[in-house]
Amino acid sequence: MEPFPLFKIAERLAQLRVRPPLVHCLTNEVVQEITANVVLAIGASPAMVVAEQEVSEFSPIADALLINVGTLYPERARAMRTAVVAANQSGVPWVLDPVAVGALGYRRQFVQELLSLSPAAVRGNASEILALTGYDTLGRGADSTDSSEAALEAARQLAKKNQTIVAVTGKTDYVTDGTKTWSLAYGDVLMTRVVGTGCALSAVVAAFCAQKEHMLDAVASACAIVALSGGVAAKSAAGPGSFVPYFIDALYKINPDNLKEYEDAGYRNTECENEHA
Amino acid sequence: MEPFPLFKIAERLAQLRVRPPLVHCLTNEVVQEITANVVLAIGASPAMVVAEQEVSEFSPIADALLINVGTLYPERARAMRTAVVAANQSGVPWVLDPVAVGALGYRRQFVQELLSLSPAAVRGNASEILALTGYDTLGRGADSTDSSEAALEAARQLAKKNQTIVAVTGKTDYVTDGTKTWSLAYGDVLMTRVVGTGCALSAVVAAFCAQKEHMLDAVASACAIVALSGGVAAKSAAGPGSFVPYFIDALYKINPDNLKEYEDAGYRNTECENEHA
Amino acid sequence: MEPFPLFKIAERLAQLRVRPPLVHCLTNEVVQEITANVVLAIGASPAMVVAEQEVSEFSPIADALLINVGTLYPERARAMRTAVVAANQSGVPWVLDPVAVGALGYRRQFVQELLSLSPAAVRGNASEILALTGYDTLGRGADSTDSSEAALEAARQLAKKNQTIVAVTGKTDYVTDGTKTWSLAYGDVLMTRVVGTGCALSAVVAAFCAQKEHMLDAVASACAIVALSGGVAAKSAAGPGSFVPYFIDALYKINPDNLKEYEDAGYRNTECENEHA
Repeated sequence: MEPFPLFKIAERLAQLRVRPPLVHCLTNEVVQEITANVVLAIGASPAMVVAEQEVSEFSPIADALLINVGTLYPERARAMRTAVVAANQSGVPWVLDPVAVGALGYRRQFVQELLSLSPAAVRGNASEILALTGYDTLGRGADSTDSSEAALEAARQLAKKNQTIVAVTGKTDYVTDGTKTWSLAYGDVLMTRVVGTGCALSAVVAAFCAQKEHMLDAVASACAIVALSGGVAAKSAAGPGSFVPYFIDALYKINPDNLKEYEDAGYRNTECENEHA
Repeated sequence: MEPFPLFKIAERLAQLRVRPPLVHCLTNEVVQEITANVVLAIGASPAMVVAEQEVSEFSPIADALLINVGTLYPERARAMRTAVVAANQSGVPWVLDPVAVGALGYRRQFVQELLSLSPAAVRGNASEILALTGYDTLGRGADSTDSSEAALEAARQLAKKNQTIVAVTGKTDYVTDGTKTWSLAYGDVLMTRVVGTGCALSAVVAAFCAQKEHMLDAVASACAIVALSGGVAAKSAAGPGSFVPYFIDALYKINPDNLKEYEDAGYRNTECENEHA
Repeated sequence: MEPFPLFKIAERLAQLRVRPPLVHCLTNEVVQEITANVVLAIGASPAMVVAEQEVSEFSPIADALLINVGTLYPERARAMRTAVVAANQSGVPWVLDPVAVGALGYRRQFVQELLSLSPAAVRGNASEILALTGYDTLGRGADSTDSSEAALEAARQLAKKNQTIVAVTGKTDYVTDGTKTWSLAYGDVLMTRVVGTGCALSAVVAAFCAQKEHMLDAVASACAIVALSGGVAAKSAAGPGSFVPYFIDALYKINPDNLKEYEDAGYRNTECENEHA
């Protein structure tokens, strides 16, 4: 298990900026705005097309598709299934974010069905990845109550079994294809006090997955630029409210040449976990 | 009618931070993100689980449930009813926010049905509380056109009749169980120029209602910390745009030991009502 | 084709502040919060009432109605149709935002149906206006890939054919009734990196359309105050994240007496298009 090197992030980010992908997002009700703004900030284009009547026409035009089950209900589940099938037929890579999959039977069943439809990547927190693999988890809602380390083995199994890339994010992020695993120790705990940072990350993962070769590095790069930008933003933020504009600005300004500055600026942020101190 | 004392806010807030509640939110489409961010900022966990298929599994795991009818439609109404019944069966307290109930027959009927299902608390503006009690009101949309004083008697009647706590919020907030009434004169008029401050308050009310004993004080404390944080934020804000990050940061930083500072910092803000001056 | 003069903006803005309109918004899922906050910031009142059961009761009470098809699906389409019919019966002006109409057959058909129901104004980007008029366009998603100049002739034809006002917005905005055309060269490219600036503009267009006489000037004034505020905000912003609070604050502070200051402050902003430089 190796730290993911900056030069690889630079390569993927440069590629994203040269060919900005159009990302079809079928995501949850709560995070649509921040998801769109994060995708725009990194230089890609989001499109939230949600009707069953439209998704099969739209997914094939897009460069990648995101499926996030945070506020799943039957009509949206049908649209997601249709979009995934259309994406697969056109060779458009798609990403699964299995929000809060542990606690709820309805979405667990749907997510298992989606897993069989060959996602290019799965991005979740530790509780979600553990639940997907059948391990016990303490998770009740959308927040993780397990550490990413505890889910690493589950992530590897999930990746191997489904021939996909799994990103399990937390204090340290792990990105694995089941054989090779990258670790990334960026970010800040303040990100867990802002809704949608994880969901928006999944949209960024989709944006990078448009680079079909280099899939493992692409997913790791997505995790890296979001966490690096979060680390930088947390240094300036007075709390989760001011964090958001700093975070979006940091995503907008990150580029292949300033990654080392981002890494240095965010240093040690992961350790100050005394919220409300 | 007494001013609600700071030491009582400190007690409830300390309790919330010791046992951070999971708040199941069935709220309107417009305010989901700010609602989640406000709940996260105060140290609680929001979860927007919305499908009829999932709510009866989820409400019993949550510590409190919020029902907000701002963008009501039939599927969501069914999910709300199901969630309330499940919450009641498991002894999970739930809070009703009857957004814009005055103008519209469809939601008026639904809200009357919900009222008969024993909410722990009802939080609304003056126009909404007046409409719920059958009084005339001038309200057309979601904004109040009546003062909270004018709705105080209606609030008391509503509380008594339904054995619930009613919070009618405005320039002064009143929180009553029909017998005892607390008044709170915090906040700032700028909050009325930001969508979702009232709706997010109702989610905070739900978070505090997880403290099942002390229900009257819990609801008043929710109103207090939101209004105090709004007062502090308004002092720094240049307008409703910069208000939002300051507000979320203030909610994140408020604690049992700095309430007096918040009260002092927000002083007089309620008087500067000359918007666009 | 003449530049739209500041004194005309001042007249319409003064009128809006004297009689703040209630704007019924049926808009897309992604932008509801920023739309509401923009409408509140300019001094009007937004109301997102979305159910087929409620819209025909609500539209007639409102001063204007916005229809935005960004995340169209059958239930919402039915509600939109019902709202438009009720608005027309009550003489309430309504505005159409044909988001991403080029790429998708389902919404193209629905938008064509809506066009036959006499919108007071249509606000779109160049790709959308071209697609509506049957011209070829390069647009795939919600972002324009054509310049507003290229859509000017299409805008004039659309306006004449449908006896409506068409605003085609971009680096330069054009507002036309088919005969007379105003041009507006305000704004900043940073606005294209924030989701909802165009959609929120359409809600502001609806707010100004409540001034039923002077419809051409009202629509142009809406475009002007949003673009002027965007230009001012971009001067202070470090990126699209910090842009949002500055933008909302600028909309809140703009008034008939400081338009020249806004124009001067935003000067040259449209030229710095080197994003991610």
